Amino acid sequence: MIAILKHGTTPAQLQHLVGWLKNMNLDVHISEGSEVTVLGLIGDTSRVDMELLKSLDMVETVKRVSEPYKQANRKFHPKDTIVEVGSARIGGGYFATIAGPCSVESEEQIIEVAQAVKASGATILRGGAFKPRTSPYAFQGMKGEGIRLLLEAKKATGLPIVTEIMNISALDLFDDVDIIQVGARNMQNFDLLKELGKTNKPILLKRGLANTIQELLMSAEYIMSEGNEKIILCERGIRTFETATRNTLDLSAVPVLHSLTHLPVVVDPSHATGKADLVAPMAYAAVASGADGLMIEVHNNPACAMCDGAQSLTPAQFDEVAHHIAKIREAIQ
Amino acid sequence: MIAILKHGTTPAQLQHLVGWLKNMNLDVHISEGSEVTVLGLIGDTSRVDMELLKSLDMVETVKRVSEPYKQANRKFHPKDTIVEVGSARIGGGYFATIAGPCSVESEEQIIEVAQAVKASGATILRGGAFKPRTSPYAFQGMKGEGIRLLLEAKKATGLPIVTEIMNISALDLFDDVDIIQVGARNMQNFDLLKELGKTNKPILLKRGLANTIQELLMSAEYIMSEGNEKIILCERGIRTFETATRNTLDLSAVPVLHSLTHLPVVVDPSHATGKADLVAPMAYAAVASGADGLMIEVHNNPACAMCDGAQSLTPAQFDEVAHHIAKIREAIQ
Amino acid sequence: MIAILKHGTTPAQLQHLVGWLKNMNLDVHISEGSEVTVLGLIGDTSRVDMELLKSLDMVETVKRVSEPYKQANRKFHPKDTIVEVGSARIGGGYFATIAGPCSVESEEQIIEVAQAVKASGATILRGGAFKPRTSPYAFQGMKGEGIRLLLEAKKATGLPIVTEIMNISALDLFDDVDIIQVGARNMQNFDLLKELGKTNKPILLKRGLANTIQELLMSAEYIMSEGNEKIILCERGIRTFETATRNTLDLSAVPVLHSLTHLPVVVDPSHATGKADLVAPMAYAAVASGADGLMIEVHNNPACAMCDGAQSLTPAQFDEVAHHIAKIREAIQ
Amino acid sequence: MIAILKHGTTPAQLQHLVGWLKNMNLDVHISEGSEVTVLGLIGDTSRVDMELLKSLDMVETVKRVSEPYKQANRKFHPKDTIVEVGSARIGGGYFATIAGPCSVESEEQIIEVAQAVKASGATILRGGAFKPRTSPYAFQGMKGEGIRLLLEAKKATGLPIVTEIMNISALDLFDDVDIIQVGARNMQNFDLLKELGKTNKPILLKRGLANTIQELLMSAEYIMSEGNEKIILCERGIRTFETATRNTLDLSAVPVLHSLTHLPVVVDPSHATGKADLVAPMAYAAVASGADGLMIEVHNNPACAMCDGAQSLTPAQFDEVAHHIAKIREAIQ
Repeated sequence: MIAILKHGTTPAQLQHLVGWLKNMNLDVHISEGSEVTVLGLIGDTSRVDMELLKSLDMVETVKRVSEPYKQANRKFHPKDTIVEVGSARIGGGYFATIAGPCSVESEEQIIEVAQAVKASGATILRGGAFKPRTSPYAFQGMKGEGIRLLLEAKKATGLPIVTEIMNISALDLFDDVDIIQVGARNMQNFDLLKELGKTNKPILLKRGLANTIQELLMSAEYIMSEGNEKIILCERGIRTFETATRNTLDLSAVPVLHSLTHLPVVVDPSHATGKADLVAPMAYAAVASGADGLMIEVHNNPACAMCDGAQSLTPAQFDEVAHHIAKIREAIQ
Repeated sequence: MIAILKHGTTPAQLQHLVGWLKNMNLDVHISEGSEVTVLGLIGDTSRVDMELLKSLDMVETVKRVSEPYKQANRKFHPKDTIVEVGSARIGGGYFATIAGPCSVESEEQIIEVAQAVKASGATILRGGAFKPRTSPYAFQGMKGEGIRLLLEAKKATGLPIVTEIMNISALDLFDDVDIIQVGARNMQNFDLLKELGKTNKPILLKRGLANTIQELLMSAEYIMSEGNEKIILCERGIRTFETATRNTLDLSAVPVLHSLTHLPVVVDPSHATGKADLVAPMAYAAVASGADGLMIEVHNNPACAMCDGAQSLTPAQFDEVAHHIAKIREAIQ
Repeated sequence: MIAILKHGTTPAQLQHLVGWLKNMNLDVHISEGSEVTVLGLIGDTSRVDMELLKSLDMVETVKRVSEPYKQANRKFHPKDTIVEVGSARIGGGYFATIAGPCSVESEEQIIEVAQAVKASGATILRGGAFKPRTSPYAFQGMKGEGIRLLLEAKKATGLPIVTEIMNISALDLFDDVDIIQVGARNMQNFDLLKELGKTNKPILLKRGLANTIQELLMSAEYIMSEGNEKIILCERGIRTFETATRNTLDLSAVPVLHSLTHLPVVVDPSHATGKADLVAPMAYAAVASGADGLMIEVHNNPACAMCDGAQSLTPAQFDEVAHHIAKIREAIQ
Repeated sequence: MIAILKHGTTPAQLQHLVGWLKNMNLDVHISEGSEVTVLGLIGDTSRVDMELLKSLDMVETVKRVSEPYKQANRKFHPKDTIVEVGSARIGGGYFATIAGPCSVESEEQIIEVAQAVKASGATILRGGAFKPRTSPYAFQGMKGEGIRLLLEAKKATGLPIVTEIMNISALDLFDDVDIIQVGARNMQNFDLLKELGKTNKPILLKRGLANTIQELLMSAEYIMSEGNEKIILCERGIRTFETATRNTLDLSAVPVLHSLTHLPVVVDPSHATGKADLVAPMAYAAVASGADGLMIEVHNNPACAMCDGAQSLTPAQFDEVAHHIAKIREAIQ
């Protein structure tokens, strides 16, 4: 870590600061130039409160030279992490196609969708049982019963399943779930992350609406610091001023994450765009950017004819998308 | 709720849509114009999934006419809510000055600061016991022991206390806490909100970094829908592209919230700006904008001489700020 | 255009408003419901000041049903516009690869780069002569001499050229330029747009850093309203809170623009990301999202060995990228 | 300027980089640590292309120690600049109340409003003659005739006038205008800024919708670098994700600017919020934050009764606001 001090820092101030830093078991190298003084902090700087340091009157700026995440850091783990779930693998050249309905609604629905997406090549089944909703009056999901139905669909198709947890007190219900999803709104629910770090389940960690790539990696680090290294990162759109799409899909996060971390990165074009007709082009773009997987909403609701065109793809549309995914993966070899 | 349908919607599509809406117990008034068809939905539209409706192919746009929050809505509760905590009141003309250190560090520290801020006119003591930190390696607060020390400071000064909860499993520790704070990162931790709605403690609800004013009110509604109406809203800066300040303090949220809700609104200029020299002008601006209270960090750390100038004010600086607050409140009468 | 009036609007207020709207030659259809009154405005609403209407006390919301752009609108011009420049075509299935250095620096440099990118398959040469720079003290480009050198490179290779204009007073210098570029900072320099609308040169219009897709189309409309329909839109990243990349490339703008307008859309991954190692993955993603072209910085500066790795690609890296572009275009057929 | 090089930079790379920097007439101090190498660049670093330097493969980060603006910098000009226009002064303790209609519409209108706002204490008259409009089909202002009417109002009241320029070719029309305004969309129209730098008129420079505080100061520097030092900076809201207000007024920009520059800072709450009922609280907040002036829209349109409640204040509402401004200015002494 490098701290640059303002012009005019007195020797007494400098001495105070250096003393404080040494109390944190850091070695401090001082380089006094004609314009500024540069401090090089050597040691375990992951415990230094950068915000506090930066806010000191005498400090011009602070810059981490080593990233604040260790276990998620590619520098220390150059080899890609491959997460295995049942028959599926994600990362290190393995691509996962995760598909399924937004919410689990009935046994018939989830099994039909599961069979359809499997036939098109999906490797993992998604479906919401606990639904985080902005309004307390909106449908909050089938909860435990939803998980039970997902397990039925797993039995019927052999597809491993992924579903979201909102509260650590529900963890027992996830015993047979293959991948536990942490939603965007819980990305910095640090207590939840720590508890999930004590399990040995793969965790699909979604980027928060207004969180930086570094914050996403720090949240992965929370899980890893408790011992669980099976993490799949998911880009699902960030909040910007643009209103033509629900969120702005930040695909440059894919190669940036690949350079910073060994963890696999998947992309969710359905939630990011909020419109079915944007899912295919954004899915293709995600694959071309190097993503290790896709997470796509597919519904199968003949009773709701007007739902065509909403955020979810029909099984036929998904089949078309899945076909192109394979071709694009070849094209970028 | 108004739904505007696209030009070219067929009668069959229209009939499907209307049938689906009527299944939700809504009355649907259809007004077919030469260019568009407008549907007026009458009934309890708070349960309608606006995102789904909007994403239908035939729908041009959807607009709520009634806000999706009921109990937090000034339309139905025109009178200002006044939250009482011990000797302090917030809202409806009562102003609260909440002050104290970022983190509780020791008994001596918290009692000294409490006495100092009380002498300057603070009405509530703040202090962090559980600290949400981006890094798993950073100091996470004194936890239960921190709450015990806050209670000592309360005993010594008579000031009611406010401190943050991160996890509902810690609720027992908050039995004697006067106001429970929900931090920005937990503003959409809906399960936590629901549990807090079952308590009868005042809740200080901070706006999330990337959350809209309406989402803040929906989170208040989560708490209120479970029976707890003692909510204090807090603006503490939003995330934007500007990097000169830690966050961008959105003071227009104060009059906007006052027009939409009867709940009191306080402002935290310390976290929003991240720099001590910006706290005073932003505190003054918050008061002038009509805020019902301020939340200001004050430290008292003679051993850390270099900390002057950081995000926290010294007791002397706070005294100066408190003096001006009173004068500005008079000036805007 | 639909205007929804607030509950409680008096008949007198309604009469005033309707009179004012009729004065603008609009037909007004009034539909009074039990909760709200909906006005349908029929006629040329492109002249209605939506902001003013929205800000009236009695108005709940205003929604355009027809887009405010006419000539750029796909609804009225369903067929893709194909822009022809010399041997190159953009749009309607034709893909343009625009490549060249950030700034023109010397005759040798620009000709060498032009020959290299042509050999790899580039169809248009780019190069900055007038450089918009944040600092008045930074290099502002070779100006007229830069254009002269671009024309030399055009003569040497046959490639049509594109370069940026910053000021309409320099228009004479652009007589032999094939495509005139309007930079992101000038996207809403409306007087410049109108003057360019009077030329018959193709215009490459870059999206502003903080401009919505609709604003980009309104700026295209400014040019088209003066008679020039040869416009190429360019997505080049928007400003968000994320700092890992220079800007956030908004690739969903590509399919959104394709649905709204008949104009071709190209993507500039070099400026959006600011890092050479992100150019290839983002170029591939842009192609997969359906872009009609790419704009890529390529340098050739053996004297500046350390420049490798900066924002620009080397000719060898560009060759690799160009090769994959062709393969991805096939894969998405 | 400090450049921090990545671990693993070879001596040959270092030598290349240092040679390149020395070619720019910079002294380079090299400090090799165990983890990183820090270069201190001494000399006129305002010409160094920070983006290029940052994008080099071997460079971890670059940090300016001296700000890139010189003439606008308080470090070199500690005394507040006071801009004098006729009877009005702005900055250094002098407060300017700028008021008037959004657009000049008629002689009667502008003179009536001018007289009304003068009676309430306004010191400068505003009014738009050239109107930057998103749509080419919207009213673009009365142009030259609008300026003539503003001059009539000036004659009738003695108030100096401020109005916006959109194009340097119109400069002749501004001969008798007291303050020339550069709108938010032209903040980085560098050629316009340079031309205005050659005049000796005070310039009111509005912050762009998505521009940082530093970029605002760099645009001021463009004007100053050509010799014109009479600049008034104006905060008028930035673009964020929040839609409850038209823009997000960034009041912390006021004290931040006061610490960085000697130039006066005014605030425009009318455009920032877009709603009349938010103008008063935001005007009060701006005064309390230390602004040197306000810019407020006031209309006087008895023929348009329904316009009450729109973005502009009525003369009576403005009178009330002006009264409170004076009281708040006293309260913060």
